[in-house]
This record gives sequence, C-alpha cells and structure tokens, in this order.
Amino acid sequence: MSDAPAKTVTACLLIIGNEILSGRTRDSNMHYLAGRLTELGIRLMEVRVVPDIEATIVAAVNEVRAKYDYVFTTGGIGPTHDDITADCIAKAFGLPIGPHPEAIRRMTAHYERQGTEFNEARRRMARTPEGASLIDNPVSTAPGFQIGNVFVMAGIPQVMQAMFEGLKSRLTGGPPLLSRAVSGFLPEGILAKDLGALQQRYPDIEIGSYPFQRQGRAGSTIVLRGTDCTGLERATQEYRELHRNLGGEPIDGETTG
Amino acid sequence: MSDAPAKTVTACLLIIGNEILSGRTRDSNMHYLAGRLTELGIRLMEVRVVPDIEATIVAAVNEVRAKYDYVFTTGGIGPTHDDITADCIAKAFGLPIGPHPEAIRRMTAHYERQGTEFNEARRRMARTPEGASLIDNPVSTAPGFQIGNVFVMAGIPQVMQAMFEGLKSRLTGGPPLLSRAVSGFLPEGILAKDLGALQQRYPDIEIGSYPFQRQGRAGSTIVLRGTDCTGLERATQEYRELHRNLGGEPIDGETTG
Repeated sequence: MSDAPAKTVTACLLIIGNEILSGRTRDSNMHYLAGRLTELGIRLMEVRVVPDIEATIVAAVNEVRAKYDYVFTTGGIGPTHDDITADCIAKAFGLPIGPHPEAIRRMTAHYERQGTEFNEARRRMARTPEGASLIDNPVSTAPGFQIGNVFVMAGIPQVMQAMFEGLKSRLTGGPPLLSRAVSGFLPEGILAKDLGALQQRYPDIEIGSYPFQRQGRAGSTIVLRGTDCTGLERATQEYRELHRNLGGEPIDGETTG
Repeated sequence: MSDAPAKTVTACLLIIGNEILSGRTRDSNMHYLAGRLTELGIRLMEVRVVPDIEATIVAAVNEVRAKYDYVFTTGGIGPTHDDITADCIAKAFGLPIGPHPEAIRRMTAHYERQGTEFNEARRRMARTPEGASLIDNPVSTAPGFQIGNVFVMAGIPQVMQAMFEGLKSRLTGGPPLLSRAVSGFLPEGILAKDLGALQQRYPDIEIGSYPFQRQGRAGSTIVLRGTDCTGLERATQEYRELHRNLGGEPIDGETTG
C-alpha cells in the first residue's frame, strides 16, 4: 500500500553573466545546485545561461517562473554597472525597486566595522524589488533576496553556496528521488536492447546509461532513479540478472574509468 | 576609416541529459565551447541544459535554431534507449530519420576491425535526419551530424572536442572579439561609479567587473571587450588612468586571487 504519489517539485537555474558565455569563467554553481536540489527532492528541469542583457533576463525570468516551482538565479548582484539582476527581476515582476531597510542596516554595520565608505555603488547592492525577503550572506554581507518563487543569489561560488544553505529551509521538496547504480564491463552496444526492454517494463523508473573506458576495456554504468523504493529495487535486481545473462559481472555502484 | 561593422555571429549550446541536471555528471563542454567559439568570433548567447524528454528537446531546438546563427548540441547520441537526440532533431526539422550510408560504412569497418557485432542498438548510432552531413568522430567512429544550422555532437568531452575541431571549418565567425584585462587591489565598490561612467562613454565596448580576494585584500579584474581595436585600446587606457586616480596600481592581465 502506498499513498497517492506526491507532486513532483521542479526548479530552474538561471546563470546570469557574460563571463560564463565568453569562456572567461568556468561555472561551478550548476553542478553544486543540481546535487543539492536532487537531495532535497527537487527536480532541476532546466538550466539556462543568459548574458547581461536586460530584455533577455526579464523574458527568461518570466518564462521560467511560470513554468517551474522554484527559480534560482546566480550572478549580477554586485555594485558595478554590469550588475543588473535585481533591476531585471523587479521589472519581470512589475515591481518598484528600492533600498531594503534591513539590507541597509546590515551593510551599514559591515562597512562601519571595515572602516570603509558605504557609498552609492555599494548601496545599489541593498536594493530589492518591493516585498522581497532577504537571503543571508554570511560571507560578505550584501544579501540576496527572494521574491515570489524566485531566489536571487550571488555568482561567486563560496557566497552562492552559503546563501543556498541559508535559504533551503524555505523550500519544500517532493518525494526524494532514490537512485541505484550498477556498473560492469559490458559496452552499451551489448546492453542496449535488453536495457530498453527493462525501461519499457518500468516506465516510472528513469534508467540512464553512461559508458566508460578503463584500461582499454569498455564498460557502462547504469543508473536507475525513482521515488518508489520497491519498484526501484526490483528493476535494479532485474538489471543485475540481465547483465549476468549477457556474460558480465555486475558491480553495485559507479565506476567511472 | 573602418568598414561597415560586420554582422555579429551568434550561437546557442543545448546540453542534453538528465545526468547533468541531477548532479551526477559535471558538464565541461560548456566551458570548452564558450572559449573556442569566442576565439572564432562567434558569440555564445545562450546555453540551455534540458532533460531527456522529447517534447522539451524538440521545442528547445526549434526555438533556438530560429534565434541564433548556429546551434550546437551535446549528449544523447549513444546506442541506448535514453539516447533520443537524433530522433528529436529529425522531429524538430520535420524530417524522416534513417541510416546514413557513409555512417554505416564507417561503423561496419570499425566493428569489423574490433571483431564486435554491429548489432541493432549500434546501428541506431548511424541514423541521421534525411539530408544531414556527418561530423567525424576520430575517437570512437560513431559520427555526429549537421542539419541546417544545428550541429549534433557527443556528450563525452574527449569525443565532443574532437568533433568540434573537425567541424569548425564549416563555421563563419564575425569580427573577432578582442579583450583586455586590467587588475588591481581596488574593490569594486570604489571603482563602480567611474567604471559606470566609462561604460557610458564607450557603449560599443563591453566592460565587465570581476571581484577577487587575495591574501585578505579585495581587488577587481576589469575585462574590456570589443571588435574595434582602437576604441578598445583607448577605453583600456582610460581605465588605467581612472584606476590610478583612485589610488590603485593597475596591472595588465587577470589576477584571480
């Protein structure tokens, strides 16, 4: 007896910044968020990298916030002219933007401690769309913010990760996605037919196949994912059997060459 | 005297695969392609990561192939049931899909050399939309393909890179985007005002600001990019001067903490 399946909770990540698209900077936020969201039972359904162009960002935000349960953005919330994310989010929501009193308070205290001027450029970082709630920044103070289902975070990985850990209590995940991996030295081309039939028999289990090479030998890691533990175990056991029937020796876990 | 400005050439990368979105696999193709396209004078305007869902892939392909000069896809061209990229591209173009004679020839020879059966699953990898031209795969034979302005490549980085190097003679870039970087130990908050004014004076130069921390000191790398060499040199020189006027010592090049 199982309960009615809970709704799948979905998310999109918008990575904002010319520096990623030009190849200057290697993004690492995608991989971090993908893993953390999966652990929380939230399915990352799309990642989009967009340039620092207002119309593009506004259109993307409005498209994906209607489509997914949660939207996360990274990048573009610093003090310089190319930091336009907060303005774009306000425009997407049709909201005025202005200084957030609590952000001003935190940043005033921060710059006082540092003995640095809290100048106009830095004050830009305290602006949020009206009604936004702050996302704490334990690393460098200037906060991110949440408005509706959109979470606006810094692009610097260390700051983004600290922000995410702080905001994650606001997220409600669906049933956690369980996964099993089985590896072995059978190439995909040998496994493909039976694996396809296994997928047909288990439409609710997502079966992925990932080839690898080790010491000149071709192998495959099969990853099975689903929310129903019993079905997942059964499909995994069937996979081990079909792997053996094809002459291989299945090994639980990932083998990546 | 300069010629009329040449048209900007744009591109989009579609990364296809659940394994990236779940956090199982860390994508490295984006960073590689971003850098190579920039060198070729092609502006990567968008990257989108999509799951192995036919309707999503078809819609994304049709949206971006209309919007950008070139579209590159990575992933989903192996022999297993979750490899649906070729079928999705055919569907997006409204074309029938079938075995490509030259792909069959190459793969027959490859499997004969290996003494391995060229079975039905492997034959799937020789299927292309009607009218496609092949993209060579010097690593593992099974080719990618080009149809219209869409280039379909493997997801495995070593194979993707070899495919890209082989196909790049088919691409026509715009004027190369030149770039200059100047670093120094002035925090963004100090530079922001004058930097914004500099950007206003040089609307055709893209000026990005990237903060860093080194040995507890805050600094910034300013990256200036544009196709007009003279304007770029002038803006860079103005930046060096404003940096000095603010009390810093500008250093040419990147400093990343």
